[in-house]
Amino acid sequence: MAKLKVALNKLTRLKTSCRNGIVFVNKTETMDIEGLRQRLNAAGQGHLIQFWETLSDGEKQSLYNELNHMDFMEINGFFESSMQSLKHVADKLDDLLEPLPGDVFGSVTRTSSDKLDEYRTKGLTAIANNNVAVLLLAGGQGTRLGVNYPKGMYNVGLPSGKTLYQIQAERILKVQENAKVLMGKSCEVPWYIMTSEHTKEPTRQFFANHNFFGLKKENVVLFEQNLLPCIGFDGKIFLDSPGKVALAPDGNGGLYRALRKSHILKDMEQRGIQYVHVYCVDNILVKMADPVFLGFCMDKGADCGAKVVEKALPTEAVGVVCKVEGKYQVVEYSEITLRTAEKRNQDGRLTFNAGNICNHFFTLDFLNLVTDPQQESELKHHVAKKKIPYVDSAGKLIKPAEPNGIKMEKFVFDVFHFTTSFAVWEVLREEEFSPLKNADSAPKDTPTTCRNDLFGLHRRWVDKAGAKFTHKDGSVIPAITSSANCAGGTGDSKQTSEEFNEVVCEVSPLVSYEGEDLEAVVCGQKFLSPVRLERGGDGDVVILQGSS
Amino acid sequence: MAKLKVALNKLTRLKTSCRNGIVFVNKTETMDIEGLRQRLNAAGQGHLIQFWETLSDGEKQSLYNELNHMDFMEINGFFESSMQSLKHVADKLDDLLEPLPGDVFGSVTRTSSDKLDEYRTKGLTAIANNNVAVLLLAGGQGTRLGVNYPKGMYNVGLPSGKTLYQIQAERILKVQENAKVLMGKSCEVPWYIMTSEHTKEPTRQFFANHNFFGLKKENVVLFEQNLLPCIGFDGKIFLDSPGKVALAPDGNGGLYRALRKSHILKDMEQRGIQYVHVYCVDNILVKMADPVFLGFCMDKGADCGAKVVEKALPTEAVGVVCKVEGKYQVVEYSEITLRTAEKRNQDGRLTFNAGNICNHFFTLDFLNLVTDPQQESELKHHVAKKKIPYVDSAGKLIKPAEPNGIKMEKFVFDVFHFTTSFAVWEVLREEEFSPLKNADSAPKDTPTTCRNDLFGLHRRWVDKAGAKFTHKDGSVIPAITSSANCAGGTGDSKQTSEEFNEVVCEVSPLVSYEGEDLEAVVCGQKFLSPVRLERGGDGDVVILQGSS
Repeated sequence: MAKLKVALNKLTRLKTSCRNGIVFVNKTETMDIEGLRQRLNAAGQGHLIQFWETLSDGEKQSLYNELNHMDFMEINGFFESSMQSLKHVADKLDDLLEPLPGDVFGSVTRTSSDKLDEYRTKGLTAIANNNVAVLLLAGGQGTRLGVNYPKGMYNVGLPSGKTLYQIQAERILKVQENAKVLMGKSCEVPWYIMTSEHTKEPTRQFFANHNFFGLKKENVVLFEQNLLPCIGFDGKIFLDSPGKVALAPDGNGGLYRALRKSHILKDMEQRGIQYVHVYCVDNILVKMADPVFLGFCMDKGADCGAKVVEKALPTEAVGVVCKVEGKYQVVEYSEITLRTAEKRNQDGRLTFNAGNICNHFFTLDFLNLVTDPQQESELKHHVAKKKIPYVDSAGKLIKPAEPNGIKMEKFVFDVFHFTTSFAVWEVLREEEFSPLKNADSAPKDTPTTCRNDLFGLHRRWVDKAGAKFTHKDGSVIPAITSSANCAGGTGDSKQTSEEFNEVVCEVSPLVSYEGEDLEAVVCGQKFLSPVRLERGGDGDVVILQGSS
Repeated sequence: MAKLKVALNKLTRLKTSCRNGIVFVNKTETMDIEGLRQRLNAAGQGHLIQFWETLSDGEKQSLYNELNHMDFMEINGFFESSMQSLKHVADKLDDLLEPLPGDVFGSVTRTSSDKLDEYRTKGLTAIANNNVAVLLLAGGQGTRLGVNYPKGMYNVGLPSGKTLYQIQAERILKVQENAKVLMGKSCEVPWYIMTSEHTKEPTRQFFANHNFFGLKKENVVLFEQNLLPCIGFDGKIFLDSPGKVALAPDGNGGLYRALRKSHILKDMEQRGIQYVHVYCVDNILVKMADPVFLGFCMDKGADCGAKVVEKALPTEAVGVVCKVEGKYQVVEYSEITLRTAEKRNQDGRLTFNAGNICNHFFTLDFLNLVTDPQQESELKHHVAKKKIPYVDSAGKLIKPAEPNGIKMEKFVFDVFHFTTSFAVWEVLREEEFSPLKNADSAPKDTPTTCRNDLFGLHRRWVDKAGAKFTHKDGSVIPAITSSANCAGGTGDSKQTSEEFNEVVCEVSPLVSYEGEDLEAVVCGQKFLSPVRLERGGDGDVVILQGSS
């Protein structure tokens, strides 16, 4: 029993880091308690070891390691500037907002199909030349979703049962194939995945268990983002147990520090990557390494680009991409006044309508620039007042009813400040954006809305490829039906719930990336919902329909 | 007991009609059974009296009255043309669709505030001159909503507890007052309400019990729409009990026949009405006799106008106002192909984007024209295949699993065919359109979405009038918060559910019609949700806030 305890303690003391799926084990660190105490006291954080005597050996080592790698002067500095920024007055920001100049902006609705083909070809060419990587921001847990594992592992309930990770992996495979068809040679799009302390190991195992969904193992690269302590309004860092600092991921803008610490850019350079598509995991419709978006940004000679959707309403809770004092920026919805949000152009559109959906383009050169410590430190943290659970001086865990401290985060779009050649590409949300944020108890951004948005999109692909969907009696289901998930409604809608029809249609990414190449498969056919198009073992398309 | 039975039979036999709240009682009709039988047989509807011998005296008289007033030749004709139209091919319609010409169209987002004021003044002037009436299409039951009383009586759960009828009544009062302020003299906007057999009496009682919500009793005029039999695919009319024909309201387009039968237009003429605002009951944000809409239509010299909202998505389940073969029309969402629905102009907007919300303007002259029997008969019924409960030859009620017959309806917008001067006014849905269609189990158009849309709008009024909303700790709530009811979402939204804030704010229509005149009341103030602005007994504004 004693031997087991010693062994367990050893394990607890081990510091591990993970790169490319390989675990590096470092030696146990010897503890310089007095040195730590002095450092902490000098930084006004001495309270963090108040429970030291009550901790087990293992807990002591764990806490020591945690504290030993914190730069308290830096953290205190973050805190100071964070508290300053909390006093920032939103109205001043309002006066400084400028809309995007026309020359950086493009929209899929205002671009000819010839031009779109041009962009697509440009993008596919870069992919075919192995110049493109995708990078996934996957640091969050699925807390709001109601699960305790990484969101990418979530199964939204499609007929195929595919998780978000599988769908995304298959889209990478398909875009590689589409590039191959264009250029005649195989190519690879490496997939970099930024995790946080909570999600890295489960993610690594998940991919291994699923054989990387057909991708090459060495093309799936995991790396970790940093964590920052949660701090009270008095500047004191919180403990959330007697032997653990209360930590939170440093925001998706922690990407840049993580890229540097994990030497990811060097890895990209070695592979010949020039362009990186950065995106968030929780968009079921996300186009991986979207060739059109890539081509547009390349065509503009951009070093930095943002994919956006047009804001549906002035009060839509989405950040807007715009200019502030000559610099590009994303302004959060909580930071603008109503007057500014409701401003319209002559043509009736909202002036600030470029809704940020966390979908970006960066050149490798630009990433090298912004990950330079000098640049990176110029970016201030965004601050949010939070209710942070903490242990009081009696060692008891308190869950506050009101905000008691701050979480500091950086956002991936903060680096827009540094761009010298920006590009903004507007797409249709019904084709590219359906976020998964909440459990099904919420009215939007749920597994149900995601599923239905995908079904709707794939159904439209199939419809436009010349197929029809029918009821059991053979009568054709109209292209547009009264669907609970369509926006709006009508005073003269005569459809009753019995006529309500949700066409279930899923097209595997291995069959089609964005609706292309379906005519040969489905033209002239009549389908009975549910319908699923999948790639068979021999590469042909398998059509599964009816109750399956 | 026998005397009671006779008396009850007498009551059953009495035919009543209701106009202006007064009940007319007609004499009992003597029954010519043989004549009825012959008429029925000639029309192929002889089966309708197959259970005659099993009926009580009262049931016999009731059925006799029902059948005696049916024009079977007319109904058979409706059936024939309905079955013809069921074969109508949607694709052909597609080729014929033309977008609205620019000269009939106006949008609140593309009109200067000076011009809007001009329209508003024009409209208020007509109101002040007693030239305007509102007409409510209230024939439906709240079945999908989950209630068995008229929708207008529904309480969506506002802090005030007001029903839709009360809100609408108060908007009439306020617009009358606003017109008075402008012109210096009192005026009245009569309110015509079209009910159906199921809703007329409950509606009449409801208004009487609430003292007509402050309106003059003689200015609230109820009249009934017609009912049409439900017919099987074989042309045979259904019975839904041995002594009752299966009937359904003839659609909101039954308005024109009802106007004629109830002599409503004469009533309007006597009052000096020239312009009629027609709308549906189930829009919590509806602007009664909207002066801006009236002014726009008058400015265009229109005889017929439609208020629309811009379609949010190609697949939004709303009819579109457009032209077909040179005639104005509303094309249902089930009637157009995807290709047409997704068509876009050079400027990126949907080509067919004028979403019909059952909100119309008619001159009295135009209504006189279209209620002429000649014109009215030119309008063909819209047909829907339905599952119609019916009694079989054994007298047993059958609820079919598949559609077994048709319901025929006319739609209020069918008369667009006859307009010689049309006007289309586009408004913002967040200001004017939030439909109540479903129970809260649905994701949209529910009491919850209605309530939240109203709170959002009124909160914005108060915000723009110079007030702020705060949390309990005094910190200001941003103008835009992560709200479950805002469209879209963001990949970088850092608000947790604990910061989620739904500001509850209700401004009585008696205080403000469309957000005007609030500065004097609220400027500079800080409010704690929930907030309610109501008119006090002395005419001043009462502000109720906090938990009340």
